[in-house]
Amino acid sequence: MAAWGERLAGVRGVLLDISGVLYDSGADGGVPIAGSVEAVARLKQSRLKVRFCTNESQKSRGDLVRLLQQFGFDISVDEVTAPVSAACQILRERGLRPHLLIHDGIRPEFDEIDTSNPNCVVIADAGESFSYQNLNKAFQVLMELENPVLISLGKGRYYKETSGLMLDVGAYMKALEYACGVEAEVVGKPSPEFFKSVLREMGVEAHQALMIGDDIVGDVGGAQRCGMRGLQVRTGKFRPSDEQHPEVKADGYVDNLAEAVDLLLLHADQ
Amino acid sequence: MAAWGERLAGVRGVLLDISGVLYDSGADGGVPIAGSVEAVARLKQSRLKVRFCTNESQKSRGDLVRLLQQFGFDISVDEVTAPVSAACQILRERGLRPHLLIHDGIRPEFDEIDTSNPNCVVIADAGESFSYQNLNKAFQVLMELENPVLISLGKGRYYKETSGLMLDVGAYMKALEYACGVEAEVVGKPSPEFFKSVLREMGVEAHQALMIGDDIVGDVGGAQRCGMRGLQVRTGKFRPSDEQHPEVKADGYVDNLAEAVDLLLLHADQ
Repeated sequence: MAAWGERLAGVRGVLLDISGVLYDSGADGGVPIAGSVEAVARLKQSRLKVRFCTNESQKSRGDLVRLLQQFGFDISVDEVTAPVSAACQILRERGLRPHLLIHDGIRPEFDEIDTSNPNCVVIADAGESFSYQNLNKAFQVLMELENPVLISLGKGRYYKETSGLMLDVGAYMKALEYACGVEAEVVGKPSPEFFKSVLREMGVEAHQALMIGDDIVGDVGGAQRCGMRGLQVRTGKFRPSDEQHPEVKADGYVDNLAEAVDLLLLHADQ
Repeated sequence: MAAWGERLAGVRGVLLDISGVLYDSGADGGVPIAGSVEAVARLKQSRLKVRFCTNESQKSRGDLVRLLQQFGFDISVDEVTAPVSAACQILRERGLRPHLLIHDGIRPEFDEIDTSNPNCVVIADAGESFSYQNLNKAFQVLMELENPVLISLGKGRYYKETSGLMLDVGAYMKALEYACGVEAEVVGKPSPEFFKSVLREMGVEAHQALMIGDDIVGDVGGAQRCGMRGLQVRTGKFRPSDEQHPEVKADGYVDNLAEAVDLLLLHADQ
């Protein structure tokens, strides 16, 4: 593999995944990943542009940012791109009235969306709310529709909590796709529209941008398909087998965000 | 389409699906489908061989047969082929110790199977037991295994209860397949091994056998792939779009089992 200097040359903007990179979530709120608070601070003091890019769909951006601030992270709501606002925009543009299979934590984000007489289903990381009854209800709504529309906030397979690996929305999206014979529209990583909106917000071109995440497919692969570079951290849901992934080869693997920032501050376009 | 006489010529054995053909299940026990009790009786009085072939995995064969007998069906346990016994045989042959994601109704069938220190997951139609916590536990067991083995009792998308369409085991199988990056081994319809075991039990060749079911893919398509013929009934989970299914074309569509038996008694090899 080329030297780090070559791999990071010309980077002007950095997209940071949150869960598994900044902190590990958990029923107790979670814990910051060692070195990440300082790493974010150093990155933001550099000339690199920084944006947080998450598929978090259990918490509102406000709740997530408040939690991260409590851990000491230098982060504000308008630096975070999350799929729920993109989803609401799609619903409004297309006159869709969703049946919501979501966590109560993000329900307020849909307060101004008409959910009467649903003509689509929106699924997010509902956690414990993924009961048989709730998934079955979403299934029944889709089966009643002549043109079933399923919108999924991300399609992650799993994420890591302090207590272990946890099923993410993608697994339930696949269950509904199979049961109803539909294909979901994914909002959030790895959808190209989502990455492109982050690049617009940063004002950098794809070839000048680097995504840092713990998901080899959703973060690294998704960013690479948009012409960006992608680093995988060995924290969060990282598994050693990711380094031999059959489809995705990261532009680099680092132990954690702190190592990624060390390398960036040494080698990226300053 | 050819005349019924041609389509049913040479049939010597009939495989009957149970749920959606004999009765519709439900929280209250369910209801027999009109005409099916008499149809089974007439079929069994004919020279045709009859066998019941179900993917039922919420109830033991004994409980299912007792329920059907209460509705008036002429049926006994040894006439029913269900996936649970095939699954137990596989577990024993391969020294597999399952983590069970199943309905309490069939738990006793696994009484003699070693479930300590699991090295595989068996998933069946667990109904309300498909909680987030239970699915996540099965996921975590698979992720801990070096060679994850997932055995699924059927892969149905949904079935019909008296209260409406209900998600079947296939949806949850797909969720685990996606989350863990594994492919499940399906025991039960439409696995060819399952159909072949029924043919052996009946003592008829595939080309002499007719499957009657409400599932265009699992019953009709599965039987046809084994060289059998398949009729779909317009009861149970049947939907009008099934008659234009992109992949499976039944050898005939009938309103219900009673009509199928009328036609068989007129045209099949007597």
